[in-house]
Amino acid sequence: MRLRNIKGSKDIIENSEFVIQDPKGSKGSWRGKFGNKNPIHIEVGMGKGRFIMEMAAKNPQINYVGIEMYDSVLLRALQKRAQQQEMLNLYFLRMDARELPEVFGLGEIDRIYLNFSDPWPKDRHAKRRLTSKNFLARYDKVLAADGRIEFKTDNRDLFEFSLEEVKGTKWNLDAHTFDLHQDDNLIKGNVMTEYEEKFSLMGNPIHKMVISRTL
Amino acid sequence: MRLRNIKGSKDIIENSEFVIQDPKGSKGSWRGKFGNKNPIHIEVGMGKGRFIMEMAAKNPQINYVGIEMYDSVLLRALQKRAQQQEMLNLYFLRMDARELPEVFGLGEIDRIYLNFSDPWPKDRHAKRRLTSKNFLARYDKVLAADGRIEFKTDNRDLFEFSLEEVKGTKWNLDAHTFDLHQDDNLIKGNVMTEYEEKFSLMGNPIHKMVISRTL
Repeated sequence: MRLRNIKGSKDIIENSEFVIQDPKGSKGSWRGKFGNKNPIHIEVGMGKGRFIMEMAAKNPQINYVGIEMYDSVLLRALQKRAQQQEMLNLYFLRMDARELPEVFGLGEIDRIYLNFSDPWPKDRHAKRRLTSKNFLARYDKVLAADGRIEFKTDNRDLFEFSLEEVKGTKWNLDAHTFDLHQDDNLIKGNVMTEYEEKFSLMGNPIHKMVISRTL
Repeated sequence: MRLRNIKGSKDIIENSEFVIQDPKGSKGSWRGKFGNKNPIHIEVGMGKGRFIMEMAAKNPQINYVGIEMYDSVLLRALQKRAQQQEMLNLYFLRMDARELPEVFGLGEIDRIYLNFSDPWPKDRHAKRRLTSKNFLARYDKVLAADGRIEFKTDNRDLFEFSLEEVKGTKWNLDAHTFDLHQDDNLIKGNVMTEYEEKFSLMGNPIHKMVISRTL
């Protein structure tokens, strides 16, 4: 997601207490940053942040990190975040997801959420999709051995691509559905993103998959 | 499981480097004990330890703690453990599972395995069953907010009791099967216990459930 450039957004982001300015400097010591030993869950491509804000409010025993590449979108998330000053378990990062292994230590993350990621429909851009083998290899480094990835999308092509990418890898497809909102098991505790609400109201089914390494 | 008392077992256990002698002294600092930040998985009632030994060998990025109450059984596990001196990710505890909240800090454990627990068939002993509400409340304290419990049994009554106990609690039934060895999803990565191998060879179906708190 990109929005129109908003003047001054770079300044606001660089001065926000909720945005970690030197993420690589925290590699391996993220729990220290939060001041507790709780699990760390991240959302890669958090957009305007509704999902991760709601998760952080619901689950104070989990530390959350929301990652977004675009200033204009991150700014929107920051505006919401500023209204929840008392929330201690949520930070944001402005970064490219390809840098995850430089920002988080081996196994430092307990869960990764990917919500309505950019489908990059052209074949030659397949490597940019957040569920491509290239990205799975990056997640493999930062995700704890018993961690898992939860991916939601309404894009059928991207979902089928993602199911294919998982095959023949160390990742196990723990669960998947082509219609999340009709799935009695997977719908439990579901927190909707902005996109999800809009698309599902339009009648589009939401697809979801959960993957982990088999223990 | 109890075995005939074996002379000298108490001595061997109290002098073993693989048994933590003062478990309450490690409360809140178990990762330090292992010397890493990896997740911690425990098995409550490990019996002769085949399951947890195999898990520890398969998953060096996970720390394991095997818990057993009876000396004679723990001794058998120790005999196996002694042949795997190089294994750094497995300790044993001789303790009563009711003491879990005094031995592990809040959320210090990432996963709990319960395998073929004593069914305690008499109604008046229901509180002793490891899947009773009383025990679920203990696990709730020591298990991380995103942790889960995996329970296997061939005892249909105990399994149905366990499914009932979960209802109306904060625990969510993520998955369950009445015939694990015929379940394409849950069988992946399954490591058999001594009991499981024996009972399933006899044609008894194995039941399994996975529970967690909804995030």
